[in-house]
Amino acid sequence: MATVREAAFDVFRAHGMTTIFGNPGSTELPMLAEFPEDFSYVLGLQELVVVGMADGYAQASGRPTHVNLHTAPGVGNAVGGIFNAQANKAPLVITAGQQVRPQIMIEANLTNRDAVIGPQPYVKWSHEPSRAQDVPGAIARAIHHATLPPRGPTFVSIPMDDWGAEADQDLVMHARARSVISRTPPNPEALQALAQRLQNASNPVLVAGPEIDAAGGWDEAVRLAEKQRLPVWASPATGGNRLGFPESHAQFMGILPPAIGGVSETLKGHDLVLVVGSSVFPYYPYIPGPLLADGTELVAITSDPNEAARAPMGEAIVGDVALALAALNATLDEATERQPPPARPAPGEPPKAEPMSGSEAMAALAAAWPQDGIAVVETPSSTVAFRNRLRLSRPGSYYFCASGGLGFGISAAVGVQLAKPSRPVVCVLGEGSAQYGITALWTAAAYKLPVTFLVLRNEEYMILKWFAAFEQVSGAPGLELPGLDVAAVARGYGVDARDADGREQLTDALREAIAAQDGPRVVQVRVASGMWME
Amino acid sequence: MATVREAAFDVFRAHGMTTIFGNPGSTELPMLAEFPEDFSYVLGLQELVVVGMADGYAQASGRPTHVNLHTAPGVGNAVGGIFNAQANKAPLVITAGQQVRPQIMIEANLTNRDAVIGPQPYVKWSHEPSRAQDVPGAIARAIHHATLPPRGPTFVSIPMDDWGAEADQDLVMHARARSVISRTPPNPEALQALAQRLQNASNPVLVAGPEIDAAGGWDEAVRLAEKQRLPVWASPATGGNRLGFPESHAQFMGILPPAIGGVSETLKGHDLVLVVGSSVFPYYPYIPGPLLADGTELVAITSDPNEAARAPMGEAIVGDVALALAALNATLDEATERQPPPARPAPGEPPKAEPMSGSEAMAALAAAWPQDGIAVVETPSSTVAFRNRLRLSRPGSYYFCASGGLGFGISAAVGVQLAKPSRPVVCVLGEGSAQYGITALWTAAAYKLPVTFLVLRNEEYMILKWFAAFEQVSGAPGLELPGLDVAAVARGYGVDARDADGREQLTDALREAIAAQDGPRVVQVRVASGMWME
Repeated sequence: MATVREAAFDVFRAHGMTTIFGNPGSTELPMLAEFPEDFSYVLGLQELVVVGMADGYAQASGRPTHVNLHTAPGVGNAVGGIFNAQANKAPLVITAGQQVRPQIMIEANLTNRDAVIGPQPYVKWSHEPSRAQDVPGAIARAIHHATLPPRGPTFVSIPMDDWGAEADQDLVMHARARSVISRTPPNPEALQALAQRLQNASNPVLVAGPEIDAAGGWDEAVRLAEKQRLPVWASPATGGNRLGFPESHAQFMGILPPAIGGVSETLKGHDLVLVVGSSVFPYYPYIPGPLLADGTELVAITSDPNEAARAPMGEAIVGDVALALAALNATLDEATERQPPPARPAPGEPPKAEPMSGSEAMAALAAAWPQDGIAVVETPSSTVAFRNRLRLSRPGSYYFCASGGLGFGISAAVGVQLAKPSRPVVCVLGEGSAQYGITALWTAAAYKLPVTFLVLRNEEYMILKWFAAFEQVSGAPGLELPGLDVAAVARGYGVDARDADGREQLTDALREAIAAQDGPRVVQVRVASGMWME
Repeated sequence: MATVREAAFDVFRAHGMTTIFGNPGSTELPMLAEFPEDFSYVLGLQELVVVGMADGYAQASGRPTHVNLHTAPGVGNAVGGIFNAQANKAPLVITAGQQVRPQIMIEANLTNRDAVIGPQPYVKWSHEPSRAQDVPGAIARAIHHATLPPRGPTFVSIPMDDWGAEADQDLVMHARARSVISRTPPNPEALQALAQRLQNASNPVLVAGPEIDAAGGWDEAVRLAEKQRLPVWASPATGGNRLGFPESHAQFMGILPPAIGGVSETLKGHDLVLVVGSSVFPYYPYIPGPLLADGTELVAITSDPNEAARAPMGEAIVGDVALALAALNATLDEATERQPPPARPAPGEPPKAEPMSGSEAMAALAAAWPQDGIAVVETPSSTVAFRNRLRLSRPGSYYFCASGGLGFGISAAVGVQLAKPSRPVVCVLGEGSAQYGITALWTAAAYKLPVTFLVLRNEEYMILKWFAAFEQVSGAPGLELPGLDVAAVARGYGVDARDADGREQLTDALREAIAAQDGPRVVQVRVASGMWME
């Protein structure tokens, strides 16, 4: 007879979830016993890192991904990462150990008291089975919840004495076998009406959001834009965890600003704004203004009911965005007479500074960029410069944390590289943002993952200084980061790391790092204080 | 007229809370504006570290301590630390930024959705004021909740546009002025009856818990033990975040084992077990057995109603443990005719291994130990050896994380050193446990805190291997830590770090590190695989 452990691993196997990201504790050992040879375990040294790695892996692979955490303190350390994962719509199935059932009521040490509350409000489903026999089925249910739209993390707390119990064969057989098909096209009549409005609009515009990439809708988005001659904006960078449109495309206009006033100002003059696969909008900071200019109407297509409900203006159509784009293209079979927008100019010479500007560093990166490269970006003061200079134009090539949280970068790069072993992954970081998940460098080194980490060192929390100026705040403490040398710390973790100086040297160092296949590389460069937008 | 910010700082000032531990984000900047000169800000690079530093500071200073976190992702990263702090009964007042009120309903980026749920179930009170004018009063209320027994963390979420609003002077005047006196002696009749039982018992025993140290009851505990000739056990190390009794005292017997079977076996033969200031008991792992041997009765005194309710056996008397001990001593004015227990032998020569055993490393530390030293311990495989060899015997000299969570060590040592600048602080760590809050090394260096970090490097999660053997688990992945060199990482953070080899060299290196006053020192030593108990 199979044990609960064997049955649970069969469930994971049935869903192709044979890579586990974890940081083990005593309460997880019974699950990890006699670890099956067809599974692999990726060790992270702190739980925020474990979740970040799985987030990157889940997004890049498109598959539900198993995260295994220690009871209460392990889950607690992971909550920030779970917050990030829900914003990134990463389908994580998080399991955590729990005290043995006979010691939960008396709250013995390491009891996960009120276990289902711990990861709230950031998981779609949170459960602790009432019986050992329900563990495999609870895991199966968590997998379905995680992958149903909107994708996101789920949580199952499992008492450590459950794994050795005898499984219920009938329950397990069905749990392993069943599937849920959840990709739903939007309402066809609503799409038909939208196609008509688009055809009749005098100056419509497309806002392309991250869900287009996640749904595999990139080609249909390009086809729609070209057929309808739509200018295309990316949704604000703050919420843009993936790219929804090729950024070197002649009709691509740039990234929407992230505040209410700026968005309506940018979209002014368009009679119809079609937002696909983005919240409306990931506003930050607060700059009041009209939500839309007079004469502008907005329709958003999203698979996320919450995004549909909470948008402060416009209409929303709920359904899979790739299917929606395909349906619109199928309806709109005649070309429009509208003219395409004028192409935006190529990036010019970057602003110079001493040490170099963030824009110069991004220009160096662009010069070294490999054709099939994937970027993981966590450099708040140079993100816009990155987008402008790199203009990435292949699907699945850009990952950013949509939550505004930090600690995603290094970890997610590790996960993306594991999911896409044949593509070069480059992670761009500030030295401050690198700290939240710094120990992921050890995992990159231990697993010999050829990620290139480009660290921009400005000795400050530049993004906060920019906010402080914006908020007219002066005299705030804690914004300086003297003596924080990520290259030196990386060497401590066994990563080959060097400092580069000057744009040419940086380009060369990046080319060399990207070409290296035997493990991670860190290239660190000093950059001048400033927010780099071009 | 005062702003909400000025009024809130007045509330903190009135409670002596002028040190703020934080990691700032944009949502905190309006609070931190024009930071008052009589306040100091201690910067941590990740939120688990920030909470850990405040936990150490609060415990060592005995005062409520202010932690300031970034909105949702910052609070999320801190949850593991908040779990630790509640287990340690550290009175933390946690404030976090929040979106501006006009952008919360639409859930703009960095909105802390359901903010009061985020730190649950680990805070005593969680609140987001409905009006800006209630912020100073909410902070005052959070301070009272945090310091009422049992002490623990509280949480206030504050929309970033509240700080500049005009304060309500009347509310603020009272919030600033009011005080709450909460130290309650236990029921006098119950204590009287207990004194009688103690006097009449034939073979009573005292179990001393961490709350004795926190309540300042150390001298009364010694007086009671000596007067009544009680053998004294420390509560199990798993839950012993502080020492309740001098461990070199002739009547001190050692540390109770942490499992049900072992506790009742150890206490067998005693007709009365008096537990003071400990949960009954912080059991881990699960070894079944009788909760108490036949003929053994148990009475626990605790200020924590939850500990009183959840104990699986015995009577409980709720009230301040220092006042309880003083009252018992006042009642029990005649000496007993019982004989004191035989003194336990001094620690012998430590077991030898190659590289050295954890016991040898602890012997070296004991040889270098400064009279007024304070230990912060996070070395799961050598904690018992530490206790046995150091036998610390001054109040306020030992801090350990009672939750079973990791990430406390380096951070708490930083906080303890800030609270006790004139005492040498020594933090003993494993290279694995060091990783959860590794960035606190930067804070130690940046603030030039003379903490000594002793890192035991065994290239594994030894405690998990021990648990695996205990749980009869084999073949678990993720238990090896090759190439994890904390000294090298520490140098990367600007900390003077060296490797020591051999017991004498280790003693010398520790003496030198402890004597150094200009900043932190790391001394790393390789130790053999094993759980070190003696």
